[in-house]
Amino acid sequence: MITYCSNCGNPTVTITPPGDDRLRQVCRDCDIIHYENPKVVVGCIPQWEEKILLCRRSIEPRYGRWTLPAGFLEIGETVAEGARRETIEEACARVDNLVAYALYNLSFIGQVYIMFLARLIDTDFKPGHESLSVELFNENEIPWDNLAFPVVEKTLKKYFKDRKIGTFPFFMGDISPL
Amino acid sequence: MITYCSNCGNPTVTITPPGDDRLRQVCRDCDIIHYENPKVVVGCIPQWEEKILLCRRSIEPRYGRWTLPAGFLEIGETVAEGARRETIEEACARVDNLVAYALYNLSFIGQVYIMFLARLIDTDFKPGHESLSVELFNENEIPWDNLAFPVVEKTLKKYFKDRKIGTFPFFMGDISPL
Repeated sequence: MITYCSNCGNPTVTITPPGDDRLRQVCRDCDIIHYENPKVVVGCIPQWEEKILLCRRSIEPRYGRWTLPAGFLEIGETVAEGARRETIEEACARVDNLVAYALYNLSFIGQVYIMFLARLIDTDFKPGHESLSVELFNENEIPWDNLAFPVVEKTLKKYFKDRKIGTFPFFMGDISPL
Repeated sequence: MITYCSNCGNPTVTITPPGDDRLRQVCRDCDIIHYENPKVVVGCIPQWEEKILLCRRSIEPRYGRWTLPAGFLEIGETVAEGARRETIEEACARVDNLVAYALYNLSFIGQVYIMFLARLIDTDFKPGHESLSVELFNENEIPWDNLAFPVVEKTLKKYFKDRKIGTFPFFMGDISPL
């Protein structure tokens, strides 16, 4: 929540700027509109033979639950570069052959997830600083009752469904509040 | 550029937080890291029979040049909803049948473009407040030398190429600095 101007430190006012139709935080001193926009989360499904890699979270929210490597896109990187970086950070794992697979809208929290299919280059992985452990799972070993987020569950269910058919068309979905 | 805390108005410091590897703006009073992340731009190719709709910009940058309807995604909307809204705002045009078509990384300016194919519902369009005019163009009428942005030119070139083949697979591309 913005209450002060990041450019001058004076309090902002909440108004609908001329020509706009939404309330914004505006600095009357700097004449700057401080827009707040959704953030992009990028991640991947690292594949190794029939298995996929999951990370057990060492941070809140969802401490101790399993997730796909994913995190906020940074300025200066492409979405694929961001997904690769997050996989290194959370699992010390290197992936290649990234193919865009899914886009999820989490519009209620202002996030857009972009998930890739990826090939794990080797099994020389270990927990990064946000993970308790990192493991490869066959489909019948996935900890469905202990996944961190609905977007992870949805992505994995779609993935195993598509894998049976043998094609992975790009798709879009929405995640609603629990 | 952030120089003051948006939460308390005190000056921020530029440091690499513990466990991070990038310089961030941090407020030592609030203990808040003010992350800056890429923004999502959403838009579409509105199709009407063999024609597509372009808008001539009435604002800078690129005043007077032609563009596809597109703009910043807002918190609370899906990427498709954002593309529909921008088409209404810039061209007073209603579209449906939105299909994700392209993702472009403009990583040098921290933007991710997501473009849809869409069907123009009717020809009852007119310039919105950011457009001088709005027109339908056949392929041979596209003002190639007067387009607003490289991302518009790339999207349209790919579109007409795909249209000759008759399939529009989702694709990703990068836009580099001019």
